[in-house]
Amino acid sequence: MNALIVHAHPEPHSFNAALRDAAVDLLLEQGHAVEVSDLYAMNFKPVVDRDDFLTCRDEERFNVSLEQRHAHLHGGLAPDIRSELDRLQRADLLILQFPLWWFGMPAILKGWIDRVFVSGAVYGRSAMFEHGKLRGKRAMVCVTTGAPPQAFGPGSLNGDVLDLLAPLHRGVLAFTGMSVLPPYVAYHVPYAGAEGRAGMLHGYREHLLGLETLAPLTMPRMADHPMPHEDGARPRAQ
Amino acid sequence: MNALIVHAHPEPHSFNAALRDAAVDLLLEQGHAVEVSDLYAMNFKPVVDRDDFLTCRDEERFNVSLEQRHAHLHGGLAPDIRSELDRLQRADLLILQFPLWWFGMPAILKGWIDRVFVSGAVYGRSAMFEHGKLRGKRAMVCVTTGAPPQAFGPGSLNGDVLDLLAPLHRGVLAFTGMSVLPPYVAYHVPYAGAEGRAGMLHGYREHLLGLETLAPLTMPRMADHPMPHEDGARPRAQ
Repeated sequence: MNALIVHAHPEPHSFNAALRDAAVDLLLEQGHAVEVSDLYAMNFKPVVDRDDFLTCRDEERFNVSLEQRHAHLHGGLAPDIRSELDRLQRADLLILQFPLWWFGMPAILKGWIDRVFVSGAVYGRSAMFEHGKLRGKRAMVCVTTGAPPQAFGPGSLNGDVLDLLAPLHRGVLAFTGMSVLPPYVAYHVPYAGAEGRAGMLHGYREHLLGLETLAPLTMPRMADHPMPHEDGARPRAQ
Repeated sequence: MNALIVHAHPEPHSFNAALRDAAVDLLLEQGHAVEVSDLYAMNFKPVVDRDDFLTCRDEERFNVSLEQRHAHLHGGLAPDIRSELDRLQRADLLILQFPLWWFGMPAILKGWIDRVFVSGAVYGRSAMFEHGKLRGKRAMVCVTTGAPPQAFGPGSLNGDVLDLLAPLHRGVLAFTGMSVLPPYVAYHVPYAGAEGRAGMLHGYREHLLGLETLAPLTMPRMADHPMPHEDGARPRAQ
């Protein structure tokens, strides 16, 4: 199996880095191939713009998904996008490793998705969810939080952590056809002592060891949501 | 009233820009002061890192929220952050204008939040939700989608648009104490003709004209979620 870990934390000695390293070690022990995209270390550019493309479909009006589709068809993706897309396409397992910032991903990781999840390569107009172009792959989130678990349960102050992660789970990972495995959440990390952190690292290894038996989260299917016929109007920029 | 519109679209002639301009025009007509942060035009840096701070609390280990609090107390925020935070602090109404990319904000806007929503300035450990430091302000999202409304209703393929926006509504805007007004959603924009777009611009003006009578979304309160006593352990990096 090929695994890709996309890591988004600015501090090389963070607990996120320890979680990443625990996953690398375990996956290697199991005989898998592992690649790591350490976005901060790579100084990854997170902003979608014209520089994403060597090609130009419409020089008057910049429509991101149309330029992505055009560049994908004509070999016009910028080298850093092409390289990350290659990694994604050869991965059987994708792990996203990040601290929860403002109930979501750090911008550098959102930008990895905005730029690397190229229209035409990972999804198409009728290639979503069970027909998504990344079907057959599995994906998993490993996230750290500053608040304790009781702040993230059902009915809690912050809301259920699965609801917070739903746009990512459903709108990115399942949308492109990946099976979404249950996330590993390391809670209250800034206040965990050495023992607490060791426990969470151990828990993460156990989580990964159980990967083959973890049931994926339930996600919607296009087949259950027939869409009305759409006319053939050409899309324009939002 | 002071309004701040934060705009996140790479195409100057996009429909997002038309929505932004409609809001600017209407708010000026009503006698309000309006500022616009056009993040792409500003080439806004979206990545949190050491360059965010003129001060340094801990040169060994980079903990974002501790560095933010330290810099806020000691006048050490980078000028671009300070400038945006000033705009946010003097705004009575915040409007976030963006296209829905991967069920969320474009990275450049997420990075505006990651960097400008400074710990200590907009929230504190016991200053969240109704005690958040931005209480008294109102906030509203104006978002465009590529898919039609029936893809975003309750029980739909993509899920209810309010669920998709919940991490932003609840975890950013309400978290810092702002009243969250109902969003304006312009659906299926790439496939709307000139008439459809004119209708949506009109609809947005009507939405904004009704702002004073719009009931804010219901959000959680700290008072309803008493947290157990926490020890005084010093937080460390996640």
